[in-house]
Amino acid sequence: MEKGGKKWIIRGNDKLKVGTENTIRGLLEVMNSNLNVNDERPIIPLGHGDPSPFTCFRTTHIVDDALNTAIQSAKFNSYPPPAGIPTARRSIAEHLSRDLPYKLSTEDVFLTSGCRQAIEIITTVLACPGGNILIPKPGYPHYDACAVFHNLEVRHFDLLPEKAWEVDLDAVEALADENTVAIVIINPGNPCGNVYTYEHLKKVAETAKRLGIPVIADEVYAHLIFGSNPFVPMGVFGSTVPIFTLGSISKRWIVPGLRLGWLVITDPSGFLKDTEIVSLIKQCLNMSTSPACVIQGALPQILENTKEDFFENIISLLCQAIDICYEEIKEIACITLLPRPEGSMFLMVKLNTVLLEDISDDMDFCFKLAKEESVIVLPGAVLGLENWLRITFSIDLASLKDGLQRMKMFCRRHAKQQ
Amino acid sequence: MEKGGKKWIIRGNDKLKVGTENTIRGLLEVMNSNLNVNDERPIIPLGHGDPSPFTCFRTTHIVDDALNTAIQSAKFNSYPPPAGIPTARRSIAEHLSRDLPYKLSTEDVFLTSGCRQAIEIITTVLACPGGNILIPKPGYPHYDACAVFHNLEVRHFDLLPEKAWEVDLDAVEALADENTVAIVIINPGNPCGNVYTYEHLKKVAETAKRLGIPVIADEVYAHLIFGSNPFVPMGVFGSTVPIFTLGSISKRWIVPGLRLGWLVITDPSGFLKDTEIVSLIKQCLNMSTSPACVIQGALPQILENTKEDFFENIISLLCQAIDICYEEIKEIACITLLPRPEGSMFLMVKLNTVLLEDISDDMDFCFKLAKEESVIVLPGAVLGLENWLRITFSIDLASLKDGLQRMKMFCRRHAKQQ
Repeated sequence: MEKGGKKWIIRGNDKLKVGTENTIRGLLEVMNSNLNVNDERPIIPLGHGDPSPFTCFRTTHIVDDALNTAIQSAKFNSYPPPAGIPTARRSIAEHLSRDLPYKLSTEDVFLTSGCRQAIEIITTVLACPGGNILIPKPGYPHYDACAVFHNLEVRHFDLLPEKAWEVDLDAVEALADENTVAIVIINPGNPCGNVYTYEHLKKVAETAKRLGIPVIADEVYAHLIFGSNPFVPMGVFGSTVPIFTLGSISKRWIVPGLRLGWLVITDPSGFLKDTEIVSLIKQCLNMSTSPACVIQGALPQILENTKEDFFENIISLLCQAIDICYEEIKEIACITLLPRPEGSMFLMVKLNTVLLEDISDDMDFCFKLAKEESVIVLPGAVLGLENWLRITFSIDLASLKDGLQRMKMFCRRHAKQQ
Repeated sequence: MEKGGKKWIIRGNDKLKVGTENTIRGLLEVMNSNLNVNDERPIIPLGHGDPSPFTCFRTTHIVDDALNTAIQSAKFNSYPPPAGIPTARRSIAEHLSRDLPYKLSTEDVFLTSGCRQAIEIITTVLACPGGNILIPKPGYPHYDACAVFHNLEVRHFDLLPEKAWEVDLDAVEALADENTVAIVIINPGNPCGNVYTYEHLKKVAETAKRLGIPVIADEVYAHLIFGSNPFVPMGVFGSTVPIFTLGSISKRWIVPGLRLGWLVITDPSGFLKDTEIVSLIKQCLNMSTSPACVIQGALPQILENTKEDFFENIISLLCQAIDICYEEIKEIACITLLPRPEGSMFLMVKLNTVLLEDISDDMDFCFKLAKEESVIVLPGAVLGLENWLRITFSIDLASLKDGLQRMKMFCRRHAKQQ
């Protein structure tokens, strides 16, 4: 600022100027603003994981009923406590405990404004000068953005496509040092659709134990599975290593707009009891904002009353969607399919640009596809894996088929002449 | 972390370890945990500004109806855009434009999870190495906490009790330098209940212009006024100086639990158009979380349909509450009343500890009052003003009277013998 001047110079926070253009949201925004406005066909959004706009994925009436009841009660107009209202925290503790060999308590649970804020809170809390964090590649870029913003060095370990996207544990051992604050595991996986076996998660837990680092277990896609592996929460290994479990109702209940998630300390052996972790999480929440109280108020009813057939219908839709993906994509020469994903809403496929005439890489592919066919697909580069594509298949089946057929035409048109 | 060890050492974020124990929430939590459990009388909460639990302050049915309609429509289950859904942003632009000599546009408005997140966003965005920010004393400590967390040096200017808590403009001129990023003005005032005149706000704007610094205008208590001064939004001076207007539906509609606020760029002359401010705010929102989409969806109806008589009833209650405060407190020898507050929900009174036997300061007063009388009042120390008290009068009138009478008994019991 200049004293006496009439010029307002906003220097602004430099940390906001780096890295964030590589977010999924940011990239999709650019792609959307770059569409062909003269294309009269509907835009097919295979770029981000939000099936809620599609009628077939509409949430259960239980959610609407629970919200209406909470509103009518007039009990939830007040500021919620920073950690969340006790009834909602307790309902999450009970909900998660069903899949664990021990009981979580109300005090283990902190409500957050979506899983997104849970990621923000845990990276903020663990950040310390010189610290580093182990993040999967490919992964979910919000971890990278939050870590960088809080001065945590990001160290990427590979997920191995040839091994059903398992964690490269040797890489983890090599990357960790005395300044490593945590390892992030996303299961069921975004973007890879992996559902890890009990045995693999056990190895992850044992590796983390050996390294002395807690696990951040991102389970926002918990129970959204349709393969042969069951969903095993990382918390099952809570007696081996302390775990921060992150989740939300966004994906399983198809209500990301409600912005309700959680950060849970899964530490039955009390490894963390002499640390300041609880007080740091509380301080961080105290400084931050909360999910709407009325939605917290509705949560116990949502968790308790939702019928199995609602979940079964969603899983059935996702299975059909996967079938359509494999049928259509197997006919596209320049795209290689791996074995089917077992969970989440995403499929990672490999792009072979050598088979294409005028496409330089995945980013080029996605921008041209969007422009020419009004089909949005996410380039792997934004997830750390160049020349791969992430295809979201949680949209209505007819649109999915339409989108993939347009992609097929696009690939044929751009194929190198043999 | 120790390689090979079984000890999980969480070093944690040092910035969370300082300062935040001085938040209002933090202090009230300590006071509440320190109450006398054997006192069977109801606890009288005069410590924080949330009238929503009291039936007489119940929000209008318009809010409930708008929420129900938004839920039934099933249109708001998706992720909202980072800046908020366009209809909600437009409704805020129109709502605020009614009191301005120009029209705000949809693009000027960014929705936030309560005014609290708006404070977080603007301090994050403006933070830069070596920067400082001018904050009123007494003030709202969340500004201090956010500034410190983002490495902004806090410089306090006084509000002058003898001048209806006007800004000490000489102090502002003396404190500002080329590294000052903004000045914060809270009007109507928390904690002082000030409602600034047009003339005073004009002087604030001219001072800021001379110093070349934008104004952060916290108007979360906008229109909650009951004195002779009308509410003048700082935005009226947007042609003099660029203004960031912060607000929310929390206070005027008595729904803090809905967590819906806004950050508005009030800059009709386009002073900021060549700066990166919009892109920085977007980046910051992109990294952060959003208010629930269904509540955003209800906002236009809430703003449009709420009847004047709802607001009038609230103002009438606050006027009656102020009368009770003055009637009761004027009989308390150790407390000095200033002229009546003209807005918000708070009253600042001066504590004269020399008249008390065994009370060392405001903090001691508040802790003993809580313990002995189950009445919670906020010590001025947490707001930057020792030996003052902040009394929230937005509770039901019978409880207010009861609480103040207990305070009177308490003061008599602790009075020095003449």
